[in-house]
Amino acid sequence: MRVSELVERTGVPLASIKYYLREGLLMPGTPTSATQASYGEEHVRRLALIKALTDVVGLSVAKAGAVLRLIDRPEDGLFETLGRAIASLPPEAPELPDYPRARAALERLGQVYDPRFAATAQLEQALAAAERAGMPIDDRRLDAYGRHVRAIAEADLVGMPSDPAQAVEYAVLGTALYDPVLAALRRLAHQDLAARRL
Amino acid sequence: MRVSELVERTGVPLASIKYYLREGLLMPGTPTSATQASYGEEHVRRLALIKALTDVVGLSVAKAGAVLRLIDRPEDGLFETLGRAIASLPPEAPELPDYPRARAALERLGQVYDPRFAATAQLEQALAAAERAGMPIDDRRLDAYGRHVRAIAEADLVGMPSDPAQAVEYAVLGTALYDPVLAALRRLAHQDLAARRL
Repeated sequence: MRVSELVERTGVPLASIKYYLREGLLMPGTPTSATQASYGEEHVRRLALIKALTDVVGLSVAKAGAVLRLIDRPEDGLFETLGRAIASLPPEAPELPDYPRARAALERLGQVYDPRFAATAQLEQALAAAERAGMPIDDRRLDAYGRHVRAIAEADLVGMPSDPAQAVEYAVLGTALYDPVLAALRRLAHQDLAARRL
Repeated sequence: MRVSELVERTGVPLASIKYYLREGLLMPGTPTSATQASYGEEHVRRLALIKALTDVVGLSVAKAGAVLRLIDRPEDGLFETLGRAIASLPPEAPELPDYPRARAALERLGQVYDPRFAATAQLEQALAAAERAGMPIDDRRLDAYGRHVRAIAEADLVGMPSDPAQAVEYAVLGTALYDPVLAALRRLAHQDLAARRL
């Protein structure tokens, strides 16, 4: 298809498509003349992925490019690549040598504590914020959260593709896209439970 | 205590305290002279709540004021007040007459569908974003999410105070403060499960 059709199919403006081509986020089309190129379904799919990373996940174009490079060339083994890709997602949390609240919580849940995981800093930040607001998480709540979040994570991993590039894409999008689904479901469950009680 | 001590205890700058007093977010202290007043523990607590609503939850001062008014004067019954307070939290989602994806999901989960709940619009928005990115939620995942999120919501409600003002404060802070805890725990559970598999 011509670039005008690509604009129509994806809703991504021509200027953005040219920008993504220049920055290497979108792979070039097949040249059909000195000034034109032909694009295929892989370009439609890639633009959907770029849109998801920038519009929905809220990454800058530079950060989206870094994630796309990890998807295109998973390096150092899948586990490290996955960790690096997920670490580029918001929220940003300050890097510290030790995260005492996160460490205690993970020890209680029987999970590995690793200060190199970005999510460890995010957990520390979230636990500290709850504490400062006068609502520190107690063991009863932590145990319930840990058990049920683990079951959710297990359901997430069922659909994980075995191809490394697809696995990284799946993990990045699945992490970012389903967080808001879970948050909305939690509020609706609160409302449903409260309606029954009140 | 004097206002200078209140600044020290809470870390909230004097200019902000004066602003909150003027806007009615912080209740006045007890006058001790024509230009001075004395503040108590209730002011320390209130400032922690204002900080949580503005800094952590990310509300504007005007929106935080609206939530605080609901906490101070729960009206129309607790259920409606809770709904209104939670509806003022992010994310903002467009109001529509119908939310077909959210309706289908809630019907499947056996929960009430109510287009007046803000979280219904949030769920629709999140499901539509996942669909656009080529990762629509399937029934297997939805069922797992629904079951375990409900268990999390039940754990949340255990600690709910019976006093209406405290219940609204608990619901607002608990909704906003524990979402990031759950998101971080989900990522860490992914990493834990992936480490065992890869």
